[in-house]
Amino acid sequence: MRSNKELLNQFEFFLQSHLPRTQSFHPYFEKALGEMLDVGGKRFRPLLLLSVVESINPLLVENALHVALGMEMMHTYSLIHDDLPCMDNAELRRGHPTLHVSYDETTAVLVGDALNTHAFYCIANAPLSAEIKVKLVSLLASDAGIFGMVLGQAIDCFFEDKVLSVDQLSFLHVHKTAKLIAASLAMGALICELDKQNYETLYQFGLKLGLLFQVQDDIIDATYSSEEAGKPTGNDEHKNSFVNLLGLKGAVAEKMRLLSELDAQLAKLDTRLAGTLKAVIDDYFKG
Amino acid sequence: MRSNKELLNQFEFFLQSHLPRTQSFHPYFEKALGEMLDVGGKRFRPLLLLSVVESINPLLVENALHVALGMEMMHTYSLIHDDLPCMDNAELRRGHPTLHVSYDETTAVLVGDALNTHAFYCIANAPLSAEIKVKLVSLLASDAGIFGMVLGQAIDCFFEDKVLSVDQLSFLHVHKTAKLIAASLAMGALICELDKQNYETLYQFGLKLGLLFQVQDDIIDATYSSEEAGKPTGNDEHKNSFVNLLGLKGAVAEKMRLLSELDAQLAKLDTRLAGTLKAVIDDYFKG
Repeated sequence: MRSNKELLNQFEFFLQSHLPRTQSFHPYFEKALGEMLDVGGKRFRPLLLLSVVESINPLLVENALHVALGMEMMHTYSLIHDDLPCMDNAELRRGHPTLHVSYDETTAVLVGDALNTHAFYCIANAPLSAEIKVKLVSLLASDAGIFGMVLGQAIDCFFEDKVLSVDQLSFLHVHKTAKLIAASLAMGALICELDKQNYETLYQFGLKLGLLFQVQDDIIDATYSSEEAGKPTGNDEHKNSFVNLLGLKGAVAEKMRLLSELDAQLAKLDTRLAGTLKAVIDDYFKG
Repeated sequence: MRSNKELLNQFEFFLQSHLPRTQSFHPYFEKALGEMLDVGGKRFRPLLLLSVVESINPLLVENALHVALGMEMMHTYSLIHDDLPCMDNAELRRGHPTLHVSYDETTAVLVGDALNTHAFYCIANAPLSAEIKVKLVSLLASDAGIFGMVLGQAIDCFFEDKVLSVDQLSFLHVHKTAKLIAASLAMGALICELDKQNYETLYQFGLKLGLLFQVQDDIIDATYSSEEAGKPTGNDEHKNSFVNLLGLKGAVAEKMRLLSELDAQLAKLDTRLAGTLKAVIDDYFKG
């Protein structure tokens, strides 16, 4: 069985050889399109998707790479748009200048748009059955769009200066962050044609994992320097973060609570899959 | 056989009852999402798609409505983003204030993002075979994304103050406008499972029709008042338009040339389909 590190290496290689190439006289649009994908990040979502497939049906990993790339494009577009001057106005992402800084705002909006759309191209052209691909498109469009990530981001922006309840903050982050993480696991399950019950368990596990991811992100923002995090940090009081709402101690306690709930949920899953997910959690949250 | 007017009415009714509904505490995001779709436009792309289906297999029109709505969402998102301050900075569209004017820039970016993504949700959930839906997703993602519309828009923005050759201007508009119009016809063909040769003829016809559409649009911009056109007009010298490059007389001659080439191409198509497309052309370009 391939390790997470091997899966990540395979993904990087695939990404490099599958960046969309256009033939046009625009001097840099194609370069800009690949740039934020290229500088990478944790590749958390592709890894989740691929590790599910590796646990259940390793022969399908090659086929799943196309889908994992689509997922990473969707995530990358969301970062590019979130960093725009009219949203977080961030100048640094993944340790690199954001696209509206390197180029201009127009380029940042359009590269984001292109990656959003191209995510679906990657899925539609993956070597998988049409039935599976339609389910993948529907799930991604649902969890990344108006029923998921975009709604979460809209809430985050609108309520920037307003205090939310813990329930509202959880709703926000379930939509903004957790649904795409749950979708990453669920897309792996769809590729392997896992039965409905296991699919649902995995999706629910993903929602909790997504919340953990956000709590951890808020803790990093409040406790790491920009250099360590590779993006602007500092405990922005206007931000609806778990640290602002629960205090740093409360946020750390919430992280521990989610970690132990996830541990308990692992027992419901197939042993091999549970082992893989445990390794992912250890790598990302207990390091 | 339903007239174009009947197809358009059916589409409007479908759209009204299929706007995505979210349950969230955001005070206006859902309303903003429907607003630009709702105020309508010419519905040129859905009509092309539906009229192909009506000509070839009228029983499939109901099924095709989902896809036509996806196409209109894709087009509407592109208008919302094109109107942003960092692109055309337009305050008026379809006779209404643009979203970044009614609400704010954040809302305009996010509504556009949501419509882009949701277009694929509409297709994935249409009552059609998985095989057909995958082809539709791939075609739309290709012609609306980095291989089509977004690339065209990036070129348009970058070369705003630079003079292009007629070939470069055609490349720009084939990508920015014509490919999505060609895709509208081709998606109708895919839904009806038209053979490859007829599909290709229809796609090529659509590319020419798309160029005609752009030439006509440039003529409107140069000769209509903002009130008549429902959007800001005036012959902006910075814009890469056929009127700026060929002069008004030259652009009108180009329109006539394209119209006569389209007339000639109609002869290659099935009589009923040719009749429908002729009616569309008469309605939109000879009024």
